[in-house]
Amino acid sequence: MKELEEKIVAEGHVLPGNILSVGSFLNQQIDTVFMMEMGREIARLFAGEGITKVLTVEASGIAIAVAAGAAIGCPAVFAKKHRSGNVRGNVYKSRVHSFTHGNDNDIVVSSEFLLPDDRVLIVDDFLASGNALHGLMEIVRQSGASLAGIAVAIEKGFQGGGDSLRRMGVRLESLAIIEEMSEGSITFRKQ
Amino acid sequence: MKELEEKIVAEGHVLPGNILSVGSFLNQQIDTVFMMEMGREIARLFAGEGITKVLTVEASGIAIAVAAGAAIGCPAVFAKKHRSGNVRGNVYKSRVHSFTHGNDNDIVVSSEFLLPDDRVLIVDDFLASGNALHGLMEIVRQSGASLAGIAVAIEKGFQGGGDSLRRMGVRLESLAIIEEMSEGSITFRKQ
Repeated sequence: MKELEEKIVAEGHVLPGNILSVGSFLNQQIDTVFMMEMGREIARLFAGEGITKVLTVEASGIAIAVAAGAAIGCPAVFAKKHRSGNVRGNVYKSRVHSFTHGNDNDIVVSSEFLLPDDRVLIVDDFLASGNALHGLMEIVRQSGASLAGIAVAIEKGFQGGGDSLRRMGVRLESLAIIEEMSEGSITFRKQ
Repeated sequence: MKELEEKIVAEGHVLPGNILSVGSFLNQQIDTVFMMEMGREIARLFAGEGITKVLTVEASGIAIAVAAGAAIGCPAVFAKKHRSGNVRGNVYKSRVHSFTHGNDNDIVVSSEFLLPDDRVLIVDDFLASGNALHGLMEIVRQSGASLAGIAVAIEKGFQGGGDSLRRMGVRLESLAIIEEMSEGSITFRKQ
């Protein structure tokens, strides 16, 4: 998605530790109008797939999941990072290592929100190692629902998580794939 | 907002500890199309206020903030609950007690995302005691921006946080105000 690549170049900052900060439009501060455009692009890419649920993990995935869900016309479900007082009854659960925070979290989804006849699109803002996505795929597997694919805004191609998913046969659509980045230079994969 | 009251009655569950679970449409699972409608209603209520930023706190406020921001046509900024590797530089910070989780969190916003000439609308999904909103108001105060008001989806009127804000002169718009609730019975305040 050309517009996303342009925004990454114009507004992104490469920080030590292979972190791309896009806080000015994708997290912390969200360009809401552009977020809805990304949602429509995801809906276009997965048109005809019969998606019934968009699934993401809190917190930064919520915005793009809402945008994609609104464009598709289906609910967005988000996995919570801890079992909280508001998650009732049976849950699907998996463990995810956070690249950003350097810790492990259990992510949980109430079983009432993912059913065997659901057709699920997993959505997230970032794909680096793919740990969060594997955790969400495990939750889809536990639910018995079918996985239509995965859509992310920004894939860090050089970390390999995306290509590893593609080799597994997962349909993965990334709106922008960064092949290389360093301070002052970002190269995208041609799609 | 009549439709919201109807959804609360149809899909909400009152849990022990004065918790209203609306996980089927407002958090955990988000009715994305209805969420966008709530965003448009918030934009309508604050039309003419010259809002330049919508401000919320992660995680459950993000969806309604994105919806309101998209309807208003301005960015949504969300406060993070811990200082993370992705929050750079100077921050505004306040401490918030979570009614749901029973703990305290620092919430932080990078100072680059709230400026003195911003006109801010604080948005959240729930208002009970109002602790999160007071924390966000403190962050607006630190930034020097002006506060246009607060919009929430569901106010638990019986917990007093909303009326306390109104007595302070804050313009608070709640799409639904619950006056009383118990298992099987929910009464709304007439607005």
